[in-house]
Amino acid sequence: MRPPLARRAAAEVVGTAALVAVVVGSGIQAASLSPDVGVQLLANSLATVFGLGVLIALLGPVSGAHFNPVVSLADWYTGRVSGEGLTPREVAAYVPAQIVGGIGGAILANAMFGRALVQWSGHDRSAGHLWLGEVVATAGLLLLIFGLNRSGHARYAPVAVASFIGAAYWFTSSTSFANPAVTIGRAFTDSFAGIAPASVLPFVVAQLVGAVLGLGLVAVVFGRAPALQETQP
Amino acid sequence: MRPPLARRAAAEVVGTAALVAVVVGSGIQAASLSPDVGVQLLANSLATVFGLGVLIALLGPVSGAHFNPVVSLADWYTGRVSGEGLTPREVAAYVPAQIVGGIGGAILANAMFGRALVQWSGHDRSAGHLWLGEVVATAGLLLLIFGLNRSGHARYAPVAVASFIGAAYWFTSSTSFANPAVTIGRAFTDSFAGIAPASVLPFVVAQLVGAVLGLGLVAVVFGRAPALQETQP
Amino acid sequence: MRPPLARRAAAEVVGTAALVAVVVGSGIQAASLSPDVGVQLLANSLATVFGLGVLIALLGPVSGAHFNPVVSLADWYTGRVSGEGLTPREVAAYVPAQIVGGIGGAILANAMFGRALVQWSGHDRSAGHLWLGEVVATAGLLLLIFGLNRSGHARYAPVAVASFIGAAYWFTSSTSFANPAVTIGRAFTDSFAGIAPASVLPFVVAQLVGAVLGLGLVAVVFGRAPALQETQP
Amino acid sequence: MRPPLARRAAAEVVGTAALVAVVVGSGIQAASLSPDVGVQLLANSLATVFGLGVLIALLGPVSGAHFNPVVSLADWYTGRVSGEGLTPREVAAYVPAQIVGGIGGAILANAMFGRALVQWSGHDRSAGHLWLGEVVATAGLLLLIFGLNRSGHARYAPVAVASFIGAAYWFTSSTSFANPAVTIGRAFTDSFAGIAPASVLPFVVAQLVGAVLGLGLVAVVFGRAPALQETQP
Repeated sequence: MRPPLARRAAAEVVGTAALVAVVVGSGIQAASLSPDVGVQLLANSLATVFGLGVLIALLGPVSGAHFNPVVSLADWYTGRVSGEGLTPREVAAYVPAQIVGGIGGAILANAMFGRALVQWSGHDRSAGHLWLGEVVATAGLLLLIFGLNRSGHARYAPVAVASFIGAAYWFTSSTSFANPAVTIGRAFTDSFAGIAPASVLPFVVAQLVGAVLGLGLVAVVFGRAPALQETQP
Repeated sequence: MRPPLARRAAAEVVGTAALVAVVVGSGIQAASLSPDVGVQLLANSLATVFGLGVLIALLGPVSGAHFNPVVSLADWYTGRVSGEGLTPREVAAYVPAQIVGGIGGAILANAMFGRALVQWSGHDRSAGHLWLGEVVATAGLLLLIFGLNRSGHARYAPVAVASFIGAAYWFTSSTSFANPAVTIGRAFTDSFAGIAPASVLPFVVAQLVGAVLGLGLVAVVFGRAPALQETQP
Repeated sequence: MRPPLARRAAAEVVGTAALVAVVVGSGIQAASLSPDVGVQLLANSLATVFGLGVLIALLGPVSGAHFNPVVSLADWYTGRVSGEGLTPREVAAYVPAQIVGGIGGAILANAMFGRALVQWSGHDRSAGHLWLGEVVATAGLLLLIFGLNRSGHARYAPVAVASFIGAAYWFTSSTSFANPAVTIGRAFTDSFAGIAPASVLPFVVAQLVGAVLGLGLVAVVFGRAPALQETQP
Repeated sequence: MRPPLARRAAAEVVGTAALVAVVVGSGIQAASLSPDVGVQLLANSLATVFGLGVLIALLGPVSGAHFNPVVSLADWYTGRVSGEGLTPREVAAYVPAQIVGGIGGAILANAMFGRALVQWSGHDRSAGHLWLGEVVATAGLLLLIFGLNRSGHARYAPVAVASFIGAAYWFTSSTSFANPAVTIGRAFTDSFAGIAPASVLPFVVAQLVGAVLGLGLVAVVFGRAPALQETQP
């Protein structure tokens, strides 16, 4: 029933590229129009809410609309017993597609605003409290996605995930990257939404830690998954 | 059919903590980015709308997503005859869970922004018109929650309650705390969304008054509840 | 099946009061927090979108959630043949309820912000282009409400009507009162959302003209109503 | 089952006029109220999201709510084999209706704000990166509309298309016209949302290029359409 893997990978490329183009492009536009950084982040976050919700609604039926390596990894991990998750081979197609998309989206945004296509961000984002922000943001994202699945409300994901990111732009100190592919992509633009290459790896580590924590929270709040419990002696 | 009480209490801790982290964290971020207090409250209120809607959609199926002692108390009170509400024992688990969550959320927000973990707010909020604001906000919240239940539209609660709070941030003078656990939690941060400890008790009293008024409005607009009427001689 | 008329009238009082309290209160708060009138209207309009959507979702099942004399009149007019609209007696209960609610909401907002309870607005809103704005706003509102009914999508009304008003705050020059009861209520506050008493009557006349125009647009776009056609010889 | 063509064309006139009135009118209001161009575009984009979503929900059941010649053309092109799309005769009614509506909407907005009814915009929008913006915006719009159709989620169109445009205001350099009829209409106002007549044709060409690209992306992500595949030998 699932579409062929090549088409699903194409959806992950297109979706992640569009997501990063929205994040980076709206950041460039906002920073060029307003002197108030609060207004800039308001525009940047609202554009992301609108764009991300649309992308999940549009591409969810094709690829699941992960656009995010930690989501794909967690999908494999949580579904490895029941057989409902991604297979390792599928993860190996999704993750590179997401990273390629993320970089492509940043380049497209640079191009749309008449900037050098490839550039490195000079925006340093290295600090303990920012890493804590990424841990919290990613834990919350995974709790949300897998919690909605557990309660049978996965159809809320387009609105719910977009809204979560809209809140997390503001309530986390890091403005909630929560996504290694998007983090890598955002290193390729020297603009409002950029992240210096040297800040990327710690962000990704924090996101992985957050993902583990998020899956732990799913177990605490929604209980151990039935499929996993069956394997208990 | 209901999840075990421990898991429901955990959901109330997590949900209330997340709600207060959203309110406090977005307030800190907004105040640090914009010099315009209107823009700050716009960001703070929109982040809360997004975050609260997501939390109710996610945790409603587990615990009912109260995150609020007056809601839990009103749930017990309105359902004490029909047996559909919380039992006193459940209220006694929910309320402390909400207060612990509220305080934990403020501490988490402080940590994410590199501030002292525990601090007291210096934001005095003591004035008659603010207390009136809390009465109105809490009455409206209870009218909404129990009115949607009475008309069979409880499934609208995630969007409706979040939207109500988004409006009430602006149309009440107190910016609508409307929640004793959140009020207590917000005393633990000396930032935009904080409330001085001395201002907490009058706010909670006003919220209790508003809750009673709100249940009265439910009876006026939606009629006496069938179960209660049965007990009339 | 409909609730008793007294309860429906109570719902109209509560709903219209809440609507005006949202409009006036958020205007006062916004004007006190931001020096930028654009930010003020952004806050005022978003609070109204959130509040109005909630009120329609909550009270629609009780009274139809008109909160607006021209809607009640149009409901009677369009349903007078099929018998599905309000009766003249019901209109005679709804309209005063809406006006009382509108005035009460303004007084409540004044009180919540520590102002004199009753005051007259000094905000002159008399100009031909503003009246044109009211004609357009009211025509659009009626086209929307009765058009959704004609296409069987009345369940979209809470989100659609709230969104329409959110757009009309900005795209009409008058910021879209589109409601005689709300217009009268807003004369009772000398604040951001007020309207000078002398400007009220021309606004109401423009709203009535817009209502007629709106019902004409319904016929053009959705065709003559079946019930009306049956009465043609 | 479809309404008569005259009524559908009337719906396209009304809908496109209303859309342009929302875009132009909210731009005039925003520019007159705020000195911050970021706040202006925030108001302009949010008013458009609210207005466009409402118009699609309201008029979709009548005419399909295209309001856009490239959508009508693509509807004919993609449905020409299955017979489900517009016929050439219908396209010949829709496109002029959209252009007339677009111009009428700009004139209406000028009138509502007390300006000369007909005027030419002096806002030059000629640059390669703006044209790229239009290509991306229109490709995205077509991918969204036809992708939702392909996955059986066309009912999401009101919210999804409005949200997409809300994001595209910000993430494309051109603020996403993505519509030849709206582009022509916006030449008739010398205000915030205007476009100089000399800039119109290149924008329309870019939109047509984007439409072709968008339909190509639909094939890549959603596969060739079944009806087209049947015609392959």
